[in-house]
Amino acid sequence: MITENRIAGNRSFIAGVLCLGILLFSSVASPVSGAPLSEDSEACLDCHVAVTPGIAAGWKKGRMARVTPDAAMKKPPSERRISVKKPSEKTAKVVVGCAECHTMNPEKHKDTFDHNGYSVHVVVTPGDCAQCHPVEVEQYGGNLMSHAYGNLQGNSLYRSLADATNGLQTFEDMKITHAKSDPQMDADACLYCHGTKVQVKGLKTRDTPDGEMDFPVLTGWPNRGVGRINPDGTKGSCTACHTRHGFSMAMARKPYTCSECHKGPDVPAYKVYSVSKHGNVFAALGSRWNYDAVPWILGKDFTAPTCAVCHISKVVTDEGDVLAERTHRMSGRLPLRLFGLIYAHPSPISPDTTVIRNAQGLPLPTELTGAPASKYLIDPKEQAKRQKTMEKICLACHGREWVDGHFTRLNKTVQYANDMTLTATKIMLSAWEKGFAKGLAQKDSLFNEAIEKMWVEQWLFYANTTRLASAMTGADYGVFANGRWFMSKNIQDMLDWLKLRIKYEEMSKKP
Amino acid sequence: MITENRIAGNRSFIAGVLCLGILLFSSVASPVSGAPLSEDSEACLDCHVAVTPGIAAGWKKGRMARVTPDAAMKKPPSERRISVKKPSEKTAKVVVGCAECHTMNPEKHKDTFDHNGYSVHVVVTPGDCAQCHPVEVEQYGGNLMSHAYGNLQGNSLYRSLADATNGLQTFEDMKITHAKSDPQMDADACLYCHGTKVQVKGLKTRDTPDGEMDFPVLTGWPNRGVGRINPDGTKGSCTACHTRHGFSMAMARKPYTCSECHKGPDVPAYKVYSVSKHGNVFAALGSRWNYDAVPWILGKDFTAPTCAVCHISKVVTDEGDVLAERTHRMSGRLPLRLFGLIYAHPSPISPDTTVIRNAQGLPLPTELTGAPASKYLIDPKEQAKRQKTMEKICLACHGREWVDGHFTRLNKTVQYANDMTLTATKIMLSAWEKGFAKGLAQKDSLFNEAIEKMWVEQWLFYANTTRLASAMTGADYGVFANGRWFMSKNIQDMLDWLKLRIKYEEMSKKP
Amino acid sequence: MITENRIAGNRSFIAGVLCLGILLFSSVASPVSGAPLSEDSEACLDCHVAVTPGIAAGWKKGRMARVTPDAAMKKPPSERRISVKKPSEKTAKVVVGCAECHTMNPEKHKDTFDHNGYSVHVVVTPGDCAQCHPVEVEQYGGNLMSHAYGNLQGNSLYRSLADATNGLQTFEDMKITHAKSDPQMDADACLYCHGTKVQVKGLKTRDTPDGEMDFPVLTGWPNRGVGRINPDGTKGSCTACHTRHGFSMAMARKPYTCSECHKGPDVPAYKVYSVSKHGNVFAALGSRWNYDAVPWILGKDFTAPTCAVCHISKVVTDEGDVLAERTHRMSGRLPLRLFGLIYAHPSPISPDTTVIRNAQGLPLPTELTGAPASKYLIDPKEQAKRQKTMEKICLACHGREWVDGHFTRLNKTVQYANDMTLTATKIMLSAWEKGFAKGLAQKDSLFNEAIEKMWVEQWLFYANTTRLASAMTGADYGVFANGRWFMSKNIQDMLDWLKLRIKYEEMSKKP
Repeated sequence: MITENRIAGNRSFIAGVLCLGILLFSSVASPVSGAPLSEDSEACLDCHVAVTPGIAAGWKKGRMARVTPDAAMKKPPSERRISVKKPSEKTAKVVVGCAECHTMNPEKHKDTFDHNGYSVHVVVTPGDCAQCHPVEVEQYGGNLMSHAYGNLQGNSLYRSLADATNGLQTFEDMKITHAKSDPQMDADACLYCHGTKVQVKGLKTRDTPDGEMDFPVLTGWPNRGVGRINPDGTKGSCTACHTRHGFSMAMARKPYTCSECHKGPDVPAYKVYSVSKHGNVFAALGSRWNYDAVPWILGKDFTAPTCAVCHISKVVTDEGDVLAERTHRMSGRLPLRLFGLIYAHPSPISPDTTVIRNAQGLPLPTELTGAPASKYLIDPKEQAKRQKTMEKICLACHGREWVDGHFTRLNKTVQYANDMTLTATKIMLSAWEKGFAKGLAQKDSLFNEAIEKMWVEQWLFYANTTRLASAMTGADYGVFANGRWFMSKNIQDMLDWLKLRIKYEEMSKKP
Repeated sequence: MITENRIAGNRSFIAGVLCLGILLFSSVASPVSGAPLSEDSEACLDCHVAVTPGIAAGWKKGRMARVTPDAAMKKPPSERRISVKKPSEKTAKVVVGCAECHTMNPEKHKDTFDHNGYSVHVVVTPGDCAQCHPVEVEQYGGNLMSHAYGNLQGNSLYRSLADATNGLQTFEDMKITHAKSDPQMDADACLYCHGTKVQVKGLKTRDTPDGEMDFPVLTGWPNRGVGRINPDGTKGSCTACHTRHGFSMAMARKPYTCSECHKGPDVPAYKVYSVSKHGNVFAALGSRWNYDAVPWILGKDFTAPTCAVCHISKVVTDEGDVLAERTHRMSGRLPLRLFGLIYAHPSPISPDTTVIRNAQGLPLPTELTGAPASKYLIDPKEQAKRQKTMEKICLACHGREWVDGHFTRLNKTVQYANDMTLTATKIMLSAWEKGFAKGLAQKDSLFNEAIEKMWVEQWLFYANTTRLASAMTGADYGVFANGRWFMSKNIQDMLDWLKLRIKYEEMSKKP
Repeated sequence: MITENRIAGNRSFIAGVLCLGILLFSSVASPVSGAPLSEDSEACLDCHVAVTPGIAAGWKKGRMARVTPDAAMKKPPSERRISVKKPSEKTAKVVVGCAECHTMNPEKHKDTFDHNGYSVHVVVTPGDCAQCHPVEVEQYGGNLMSHAYGNLQGNSLYRSLADATNGLQTFEDMKITHAKSDPQMDADACLYCHGTKVQVKGLKTRDTPDGEMDFPVLTGWPNRGVGRINPDGTKGSCTACHTRHGFSMAMARKPYTCSECHKGPDVPAYKVYSVSKHGNVFAALGSRWNYDAVPWILGKDFTAPTCAVCHISKVVTDEGDVLAERTHRMSGRLPLRLFGLIYAHPSPISPDTTVIRNAQGLPLPTELTGAPASKYLIDPKEQAKRQKTMEKICLACHGREWVDGHFTRLNKTVQYANDMTLTATKIMLSAWEKGFAKGLAQKDSLFNEAIEKMWVEQWLFYANTTRLASAMTGADYGVFANGRWFMSKNIQDMLDWLKLRIKYEEMSKKP
């Protein structure tokens, strides 16, 4: 919490008085719904309707602007959107306005600052959202995504991949010098999705339409990455998927939200989905579906899965049978991590993957040759449990023979893609061994030379794409669109590269 | 047909009795429309509403659940969605429910099995759909797509491309060993779109919520490829485009359906469309169009073409003029096959392309140097006829000068792309000749070495993309997005590769 | 204007009389709105409803078919869609039909021809649209896009890139011969977006359903590129974005329109947008927005920007505050040209960039080593002004800290991408210097050899993509999807290429 009690400029002070004016001692009707708005939020809106009109208007369109926690509790449990057992008395009877979130837990927020007499913080966090949604926040804390910052930044190998990707390369005297990446570059790249570390670096006085005011200076800002480290010490950003300030459930249930971070060649889940039968049904008929319903009824509200259906949402039948319980620990439905690092492997036990070490001592979930670091990965029993959870959703629309056939193929493809990665790895190990590139033995980065980058594409782009294409039946991406074709071609290119250098070597040794 | 008469477990038997119960001797009202549902379908639904709720709900949303063939016949011919002259008496007076399709022609279906006393088959086929849609099924039988399985699997060259793409490569002692692809790998890749061969391999007993039951074991399952070989001997899968179990015409008329198989770099029709003016109009205004209307009226129901408009649908004007007759033999509107194998060429005469041999004896529609294997391809007269059919649709919205200008450019681009392919081919032939790679003369695969894979990309990705971009005016894909830029660059890369090896060769021969 | 007064065939003449018939001396009610349609347009429609039914139907769906200029003027200025101060008396009282545009300014149009007694021209131009939209046409004339034809065709360097891309390459005797591109090839590629030069090459007689008729023969037709050179001497095509014949504002405001030309790897603005939070909100919630409203109210009509919001549209708040004035000189909101040629640089002063020469005398806005040709580029003051214009829109939904943080990162990334381009450039210069490729010194194309094409991709694809990803927060494209990964890999590939040739050179010089 920022404790410096700076004296606001006169203009600011007067503006504050004008804004807050007579609103101090009562709640008023929400401008949207007639439901009560807290006096604090009313005060915020009084200025911010003009200062940040888009934010105010976005909020007004959402459910938070219309429903008080007390009203939300009156629904039967199966229709509730909040998971708190009993809303806090302080906020239960007003709609969720600006102040309800931006002034919550001021003592925990290092970004709290004095704003017209209010202790406001900029960065709303899972810790704040937990006021009404504690179950989701707790689940999410067990989700890999909530650790996305540390799992990248605290892993020396992944960090060296980030440096080799984002760091400046300069060329002088026929040599490339590799600089490390800098925080701004990382924030604009990897950490956009993984999340930044948001820290307060003092206050800054700014001229505003209402005079001079003080605002906290934040590092790593802006950011809404899934593993953001927040000024209150919490991890993640609910707005990564539940976009401010409407926080629409419909939006989170549509695949576009996931596509923000799952579309690139390293993890093209959205692209694969878009050419799958599921994605096709969504694209063609999805405009007629109901994405706001709670509970979400399969067949009635939607007729094919979006990402959320299989990975997150509570899904029920028209008869009320529960096909899947809602979870914000998405890995709970995933027996395997298809996203190869470097090979596909059973999902990690802990969402904090920095604890993992393979037999070689590397912070990787498998050996360089593919064997899993099993101690850190879920066991077959847990895998089977997760598999069953997922299958229950499949079986709502597909026969057992269909589902079994699908997963048999997926497992075959996972093995195949791992085997092709092993082939590429052996070629690279051979290049290291023969001195054509510098690798582990020379304590050099694994990711900074031409042949190494070919190898990275083998698993990060092509094997990943092929596996995802198999898992979500977007076969186009399993063949010519970064799929098997590229795995097979890349191996030939790597071999070609290696053989040419071996021939050269042999020739240069001729007397 | 599976004839083993296994004794179902007791629980299963009782469940069957409970399910079928009193429903045996009358038809009942459809749960959807009030129109009569057959007693057999009612029996199916009785359990399957709970067992596969998504399928039941999807079916309920479709037209099949609401309209009996008799009712469908009452519409004037121009508004009919069925093409049978007189519906079969057996099914004319009930809506098209589960049993109507899944118990049709049991004697033809090798996948027929006893299911609670019914002779049910899993795989519904064009042979079944022909009951009401015989014209479409017949047309489709003349369509290249219906032969997509055999045209790939029965062509030794294409098959070797599939093996070089999907087969496992292993690396030992500085050598790559190429394995053939296996059926599961193919089913997960090429055959997802081309179709698998679905065969019955006996029965398997499974535990179900209603006790033990027997189900057929199927190879190549699941699959919905356009050229699927079915257990009743028919070819194709209507659900490739008319997705089960709503079988929505609207869906088939939207480009997303085509994109399932026509989006990859080998045949990026959807991507090209999406950056064309036509695709732009569809994306921006298409949510206001009527995709369900029969007949489909240009200008009223839609204002720009989707894939179906140009290639499949019956299109009429508001005055009732017919611009194009409906066809499920899509090649009927295509004078050229732009999809280069290896060069663009006149469309093949027979949908079974395994009969084709070029002068060299290879199963290709052109020589390796581009000359067409004319004997197997449509003649100029047939080309002109197809061209005219297509142009009639263009001319509804474009002047003659516009249309002529467009096709002049397309023909120029087709020639250009063929010429650039020839250049790449000559470089590869030179590499073979000089011993830098093994090709036809060595009876080696044409597709398994680095230089060969560069050559494949020249025609399969870049020339194809450029031609499609020209045909559908998605110019972005004709220049920098896998278009001319990549053709021009790939030729330089191939030349670079070749020249380096020639220099090396010369040097190694120096005394 | 075509002055040959050819005698139309008899059938044509009679058809004309039948078409025009009794319609010569009065205006009639529009078939759409009841508003008056000119007798001339009525005459057009009389035939064209049948001859080009799609055009007629498209027009009927648009606002032009319903509203007369006089009616349009009755709205308050802030709600007007036309910018003329006083509509021309001739057209003020009729809706904007066929004749109003296609017979306007006949004396200026070299493509005017006699059509059933009317002086009609085919190509409607900004000069015609200016009748009602003079402000937009004037603004657009100051926009870079309006000069897109000349800026490419009149720049020897860019022209040589086009030739190296579109020109035919042939291979004989181990050598590639590069042909120049031809006009049809360019029209099908670069000029699809940039615009062609449309010129009249006489008349041609055609058989039509109404007998023989004469029509102008046009070069560069069809085309709707943004910088099209028209037969009346004007530049551009309003239908590039306001698609004929509905001319929907909604369509122009949706990002699909921009994507026609801004989706490829050289300028993937649409793709970047689609993975940004803005694009996600549009995709998920945009179907509920109002794209037709004038004025366009932020928060009420839409809750996240489309391309138009930030770059073109007039945007107001619900309180009537103007956040941005409408402009068709889109560069007016852009301090920097991120689209690197070869490096990102301040926006050019003149929309005609053929005047630019760098210190080396090349027609480039920067030196080959990155320093800007400042004389031709806007100064810091103008940059600051444009920056402020853009930021005002950002600040509607984002705090100052957020906005500042965003642009700090963008500027950093612009510098980084320029620096990485410099590294690649140095490697290429070294290749030239050592004789491994031919460049400026040999007066050879900079773009026609393998190493040069690698260099082009560095700035044209990867640096451009990375900068756009930063500017529009589509981070996926800033990392693995043609972003930093490819910049870093391409440099290693170029270095690898160069080092191998140096080693070869050294070896071949060994005694």
